[in-house]
Amino acid sequence: MRGLTAEGEQAAADVFARGSSAVTPRIRPTPYWIALCRSPPDLSRRNMATGSNEEKEASKACPQSSYVKNPHLDSMKEDILYHFNLGTATHDLPAMFGDVKFVCIGGSPWRMKSFIEFISAELQLGDPKADIPNLCAGTDRYSMYKAGPVLSVSHGMGIPSIAIMLHELIKLLHHAHCSDVTILRIGTSGGIGLSPGTVVITKQAVDATFLPQFEQIILGKKVLRSTDLDEKLSEELLQCSRELNEFDTVIGNTMCTLDFYEGQARLDGAFCLYSEEEKQSYLAEAYAAGVRNIEMESSAFAAMCKLSGLQGAVVCVTLLDRRKGDQVTNSHDILNDYQMRPQKLVGHYIRKRLNVPCVASQSTDAFGSCSM
Amino acid sequence: MRGLTAEGEQAAADVFARGSSAVTPRIRPTPYWIALCRSPPDLSRRNMATGSNEEKEASKACPQSSYVKNPHLDSMKEDILYHFNLGTATHDLPAMFGDVKFVCIGGSPWRMKSFIEFISAELQLGDPKADIPNLCAGTDRYSMYKAGPVLSVSHGMGIPSIAIMLHELIKLLHHAHCSDVTILRIGTSGGIGLSPGTVVITKQAVDATFLPQFEQIILGKKVLRSTDLDEKLSEELLQCSRELNEFDTVIGNTMCTLDFYEGQARLDGAFCLYSEEEKQSYLAEAYAAGVRNIEMESSAFAAMCKLSGLQGAVVCVTLLDRRKGDQVTNSHDILNDYQMRPQKLVGHYIRKRLNVPCVASQSTDAFGSCSM
Repeated sequence: MRGLTAEGEQAAADVFARGSSAVTPRIRPTPYWIALCRSPPDLSRRNMATGSNEEKEASKACPQSSYVKNPHLDSMKEDILYHFNLGTATHDLPAMFGDVKFVCIGGSPWRMKSFIEFISAELQLGDPKADIPNLCAGTDRYSMYKAGPVLSVSHGMGIPSIAIMLHELIKLLHHAHCSDVTILRIGTSGGIGLSPGTVVITKQAVDATFLPQFEQIILGKKVLRSTDLDEKLSEELLQCSRELNEFDTVIGNTMCTLDFYEGQARLDGAFCLYSEEEKQSYLAEAYAAGVRNIEMESSAFAAMCKLSGLQGAVVCVTLLDRRKGDQVTNSHDILNDYQMRPQKLVGHYIRKRLNVPCVASQSTDAFGSCSM
Repeated sequence: MRGLTAEGEQAAADVFARGSSAVTPRIRPTPYWIALCRSPPDLSRRNMATGSNEEKEASKACPQSSYVKNPHLDSMKEDILYHFNLGTATHDLPAMFGDVKFVCIGGSPWRMKSFIEFISAELQLGDPKADIPNLCAGTDRYSMYKAGPVLSVSHGMGIPSIAIMLHELIKLLHHAHCSDVTILRIGTSGGIGLSPGTVVITKQAVDATFLPQFEQIILGKKVLRSTDLDEKLSEELLQCSRELNEFDTVIGNTMCTLDFYEGQARLDGAFCLYSEEEKQSYLAEAYAAGVRNIEMESSAFAAMCKLSGLQGAVVCVTLLDRRKGDQVTNSHDILNDYQMRPQKLVGHYIRKRLNVPCVASQSTDAFGSCSM
């Protein structure tokens, strides 16, 4: 086997501080999130993009992204974002995506369509009955929807699937000259020691040995990347849950595994060569290490947020308490209610960040989340 | 970190020899693949299933599956195949799936729908214009279609996504009392040293250090599983390609990675901290180790075939030569033609196994694959 070393990798990657968020957005009908672009440019950010004079002028008006960390991109005439069916030569990415300030992602395409309809209503954007088109309609790999400053993208299941999406999303934000973007994963998970339906905001994404790291193999060598997430953002989200006061929310560690069955100590997979006692012992160890839920994407997400400088958070609802079972047996209606909780929490956060007031008609709507 | 050991895992799993394939199926209109059930039962197979007297009688007539290796399943009153939206209490799985003999899987839901339409025409099953329903219509995680003895299932991108699907598929085959099932992954990949469009039948699935193994973390401990595939099946598929004589096909090693960009030495991801020379050196090492293509599912697939006793093969077309570039730049039409090649090859193989004759109208059809 090739030598596996992990040195120097973190040092080689520039991770920059987030831009100022102390802005007061304007009220519509002028798109109010544009004001976020008018925050003082973060001079610590390296501008790796090249382009026409017009693009350079535009970048002065709105500080350009340095989310990518790849000098090779500069020499490419065209960049095809293959799994989005988008590209720099075929699409005007700055026009399509230049105003994006929030990216919300989740495994299921259906859930991400439901989220964009929800957030569009929450932000009072356009006709609530209008169909919002899938911007990745030419492919079935991912789905992508946009409403004002919010992009909603599906990422499939597991680290490889979310990693492909995030590589192409980060390049998209770069090509579109986006800045000050917050990215939020809204997902489902198995809980440990929590009532089903509890929402967990991830403090640290840990691996199956409870360490806060993400292991990748690059050029045949092992590389370990940090999975620290933005503590301030997590606290802001917890505060939003307190304001909503509709369901329990905790901050805890999230274990990210490569497998749903054996990798999460389930007894109900096609293969299982361990006992119920061994399962319980493993889950107890996880709980003692601060793990409150288990899912399959958070470590890659956290590592790529840290590497890119994107401000990110993971907000997942727990569908069951894994100490008490492995199968998801709740009714469709209960599961639907649970799956709405991260959407409500993140919707409330975005509305608060954008200072969108609650309108009377919303206070009694089905989502019940307009409680500011 | 917990101690990581890999001992004893293989020994704990029973891997059984495949059943006899020396059968002569009957010709329709009686479903001809049912004859495959009448092959002599493989007495080396352990029957782990329990059930009613009727089920036990049925299992005598058609040897029952022992693809699962999990004693806990016996004590479950109900098994919910969550990501398929199917279950033993809600669906009559033996009636729905009991006659399945071939499972074809691929990443894209659209491609797997296209495949079931293709194979349905090849096997002259039903009205070619009839819409074949998605049997997982209640979920967007996977898509599943059936035509006669062939099941076509999508698996998403990456090892975690295919592993969830395979766990639930293997349980489905078990609950449906299927036997003598062959499973074929038909996918796309990046080639090394091959003309784009070449089809690679996987000899061994190797990891990013070129070793024929699949690493999993189970209860926090590292477990290494073998990724050997069925050599006889690979040779049979190569012979099918010779008979088709429409495109180049080779048998070679397939490198399976957890990441599409940095994990495959691409220069066009959001992050890249290595040079073109380092990339070329890594690909040259892979080539020297017998690697002819790179994808993201084969090692989990091979390990789970081996562990279950399912006879499996991986047939992927190469979309580009990775020594010459990273981006997929071919036209939509060329990519469509490439993506049909594994379908044609596997379609020819299934037709040959089932002894379905070519009809005159097919010999000139768009697929051009009825050349027996």
